[in-house]
Amino acid sequence: MKLEIMPIEGLPEVRPGDDIGDIIAAAGVVQSGDILVVTQKIVSKAENMLVNIDAADPLSHKPLVEAESVRIVRRRGDLIISETKHGFVCANAGIDLSNVERGQAALLPEDSDRSARRIRDVLKHKHGIDAAIIISDTFGRPWRRGLTDVSIGSAGVAPILDLRGTEDALGREMQVTEVALVDELAAAAELVMGKAFGVPVAIVRGGPAEWFRDGSTVEELVRDPAEDLFR
Amino acid sequence: MKLEIMPIEGLPEVRPGDDIGDIIAAAGVVQSGDILVVTQKIVSKAENMLVNIDAADPLSHKPLVEAESVRIVRRRGDLIISETKHGFVCANAGIDLSNVERGQAALLPEDSDRSARRIRDVLKHKHGIDAAIIISDTFGRPWRRGLTDVSIGSAGVAPILDLRGTEDALGREMQVTEVALVDELAAAAELVMGKAFGVPVAIVRGGPAEWFRDGSTVEELVRDPAEDLFR
Repeated sequence: MKLEIMPIEGLPEVRPGDDIGDIIAAAGVVQSGDILVVTQKIVSKAENMLVNIDAADPLSHKPLVEAESVRIVRRRGDLIISETKHGFVCANAGIDLSNVERGQAALLPEDSDRSARRIRDVLKHKHGIDAAIIISDTFGRPWRRGLTDVSIGSAGVAPILDLRGTEDALGREMQVTEVALVDELAAAAELVMGKAFGVPVAIVRGGPAEWFRDGSTVEELVRDPAEDLFR
Repeated sequence: MKLEIMPIEGLPEVRPGDDIGDIIAAAGVVQSGDILVVTQKIVSKAENMLVNIDAADPLSHKPLVEAESVRIVRRRGDLIISETKHGFVCANAGIDLSNVERGQAALLPEDSDRSARRIRDVLKHKHGIDAAIIISDTFGRPWRRGLTDVSIGSAGVAPILDLRGTEDALGREMQVTEVALVDELAAAAELVMGKAFGVPVAIVRGGPAEWFRDGSTVEELVRDPAEDLFR
């Protein structure tokens, strides 16, 4: 088994109303069986989730953060860690100011699983390419410095790979049973995207058959607050 | 830029006292410029961090968990989330029972950065291969189901890629500034390792020059408890 991970280069700037499935297909490099990792930013742009803010006020997006949050988890100074309506726990409710025009902020898509399904459907039914889709965003973590990309929506790929009941190399039943597949794929894709270089889509090629199935990141990967020790 | 990620197949079972650098070199597939992701399990075995436990008692490793923890962060039923002496916050102090013999438990290496440096040094000075090393382990996360692999020690690769001062694609200074490079590499490598199949080392090939430098996962990536909102 070998995976190849590569950016799609030369994509045009995405604007509200654009169809990301068409834009990806036009690049001419995607094949059936690929997993495409698409950054949230261009999905939010295509879906017109842009909001005007006061470019002169570095804190002008903070009321948006409160509005987009269903619960504040931690607050320190200007930093807000909150839970979004989708169930994601992240800084600033996922609102981002980089790679959008000055004076604008990009909110998270309303339903990133739906966004992923739309891109998948356009590629499959209009362009004949059967590819899985992950919408990625960049989140911090407790306890560890630095940011990693994770999935906020997906289509055609297993969010969680369930190894329960399989045996380890010594014939013991596995203790580690659930791999967050879409998060590992989003992290792998980020390696070739290079935040500074404006590459919004990467291809992961070579994934095995068992990775591909229908499934929702929000439904499968967001932990039930009742099971969560940190919410 | 294209990354290739592949397992090293056919490695022998690692035993206490084995030299992992020699074992990897003998596989004959590693090149200078590769990043090698090595699972904690074989490092713990090579360094004889194995402890006998009562195979008939499913909770017999719990006193070990307490002993290996400097602080309990959360406890629910049999589940303990604690901080290890290295500063990692994880379940069961990183003690693992899978892929070791029944009646044994594998503790984390004493100093995984040092373990990584040793493997790197053997490959470089004895075998003439200049490769970076990441020791990976499988951790859960708050708020999100499923596990991902992260770095617990590294050598020759930047734990954190600092993008501060660089500009985004629209010429704005980046807000997202610190990428947890070694954690994204560990996650990418896990994709080809397949926990059930006993592949303990993967190669990430094609990384750019700016990824390679000296650096310690524990020193750079573990968040200072004073800065941490969740400890």
